[in-house]
Amino acid sequence: MFAVTILGNNSATPAYGRFPTAQIVNLNNNQILIDCGEGTQMQFAKYNFRKSKTNFILISHLHGDHYYGLVGLLTSMGLLGRETDIHLYAPAGLEKILQVQFEVSNTEMPYKIHFHPLTKEEIIVDENKFSIECFKVKHTIECWGFIIKEKKAPRKLDKEKAVEYNIPAAYYNSLKEGNDYVTKDGVVIKNELVTIPNTPEKKYVYCADTIYYEDMIDKIKNASLLYHETTYLKDLENKATQYCHSTTIQAATIAKKSNAQKLLIGHFSSRYAELNQFLVEAKEVFDNTELAIEGVTYIV
Amino acid sequence: MFAVTILGNNSATPAYGRFPTAQIVNLNNNQILIDCGEGTQMQFAKYNFRKSKTNFILISHLHGDHYYGLVGLLTSMGLLGRETDIHLYAPAGLEKILQVQFEVSNTEMPYKIHFHPLTKEEIIVDENKFSIECFKVKHTIECWGFIIKEKKAPRKLDKEKAVEYNIPAAYYNSLKEGNDYVTKDGVVIKNELVTIPNTPEKKYVYCADTIYYEDMIDKIKNASLLYHETTYLKDLENKATQYCHSTTIQAATIAKKSNAQKLLIGHFSSRYAELNQFLVEAKEVFDNTELAIEGVTYIV
Repeated sequence: MFAVTILGNNSATPAYGRFPTAQIVNLNNNQILIDCGEGTQMQFAKYNFRKSKTNFILISHLHGDHYYGLVGLLTSMGLLGRETDIHLYAPAGLEKILQVQFEVSNTEMPYKIHFHPLTKEEIIVDENKFSIECFKVKHTIECWGFIIKEKKAPRKLDKEKAVEYNIPAAYYNSLKEGNDYVTKDGVVIKNELVTIPNTPEKKYVYCADTIYYEDMIDKIKNASLLYHETTYLKDLENKATQYCHSTTIQAATIAKKSNAQKLLIGHFSSRYAELNQFLVEAKEVFDNTELAIEGVTYIV
Repeated sequence: MFAVTILGNNSATPAYGRFPTAQIVNLNNNQILIDCGEGTQMQFAKYNFRKSKTNFILISHLHGDHYYGLVGLLTSMGLLGRETDIHLYAPAGLEKILQVQFEVSNTEMPYKIHFHPLTKEEIIVDENKFSIECFKVKHTIECWGFIIKEKKAPRKLDKEKAVEYNIPAAYYNSLKEGNDYVTKDGVVIKNELVTIPNTPEKKYVYCADTIYYEDMIDKIKNASLLYHETTYLKDLENKATQYCHSTTIQAATIAKKSNAQKLLIGHFSSRYAELNQFLVEAKEVFDNTELAIEGVTYIV
């Protein structure tokens, strides 16, 4: 499974029961938390996610609505006896913020937090089955987007055929890479006979908080699912520009120009009680759009 | 009105939908927030309290379940355009914790936060109609309790009588202080003729997180309403002692020995799904006990 669940979809201050930004990405057996606004640990409980399963945390920038819930989440993980390491990727300033709080309460965690400051656009996590890359977006302070990408072998094994041709299981990975199999007698079994093409690698792109920013289009192109903020409706484009945020039309334009398959919009301003107009406007430019709704899971 | 509303009654980690510690004390037109666990600003909204009305904030100690919600609350007050000063009383370490977080986001508040570090047992707020005093309790780190006390003139005016005796309104305050009135002709109108005794001054005592600690009994005696933590039921007295917390029996014993009129118990451990046994046990020692339930207001 490769899916994202929204824990918070609001900007700045909580409003109308909407929580500040947090998302959980589930990818195979990994649980990746992106941003962690105040109340995220309560949202974990509300939507039945286990805090203990989170192994990566990505923080886009140090505005409170994206990280004020982190110290509480990390503290609770400790109180619940976590022993597994956690990897935290964030702007450098966050390390001190956590340190002063843990120090003042003499907190010693029973698990290790590996703090990785974000410094340049690069692949920050490179696992067997997925990678995470950070890229710059443009906001009032240092702010990062993230690309989470599946890794797949180019071919899938057709196990029945492989058995039929008596290929030892030890060679299955080699087959998935597209190699032929050669028997002891020198007979070549062409790869195409025992494999089929794999499904395409999917990628989830999270654009954090950003002004309309065409510079990132090249990096984020062909996303299976693109999350882009829409703090404002289109009539408040001036305000969006002033505060380095985006409108519905701007988010949808980025989706269109970057050739995304699907667009997910969120980070709604507290001025809006109703969200449907966000969808209506974004669809004017990019039809395959969905609202980021708390508790809802979107398949990448 | 002099009343306290519970916003959070749980200890350490949130559990069973219960939030960490926060209470609002309303006293005349003042709104005093005591402790501010994560999610307190959401609880303000849920229970229809206006953040803008809070003018004093008291933080007992720097364990996260008592202050992790503060930076978010203060930030939201700023985003909502607050201009009124706020007075914050807390252990000294909190100032730096707030500073590093405001600095990293370039936050400039449109209102002034007066930070008052708690240093010794003393009256920290001395207003016309009430005072707040801090006192030491005993926990794993520096921890303070608070006594909020009404101030009343000793006598209440019997206005009908005062008019009957032709006493000018300018002398009413003097009458409330218990003084007689002397007419221009030298006639003494005895105070008792135009006033009645005032109702007693009430006081709310908040004992924060503490081990069973008889040293404070003298300071907190005769509370109209005494809040004392009961992290554990009586069978876990060893655990309570180990972590510098209290059991039901211990809280009720403090209430009894300090001659409280009423006891309010809270800060329940996340191990308990049901709370009723807390009430049953505390009542074995001190009958006039109530559970601190989120959203409920208790008259002092």
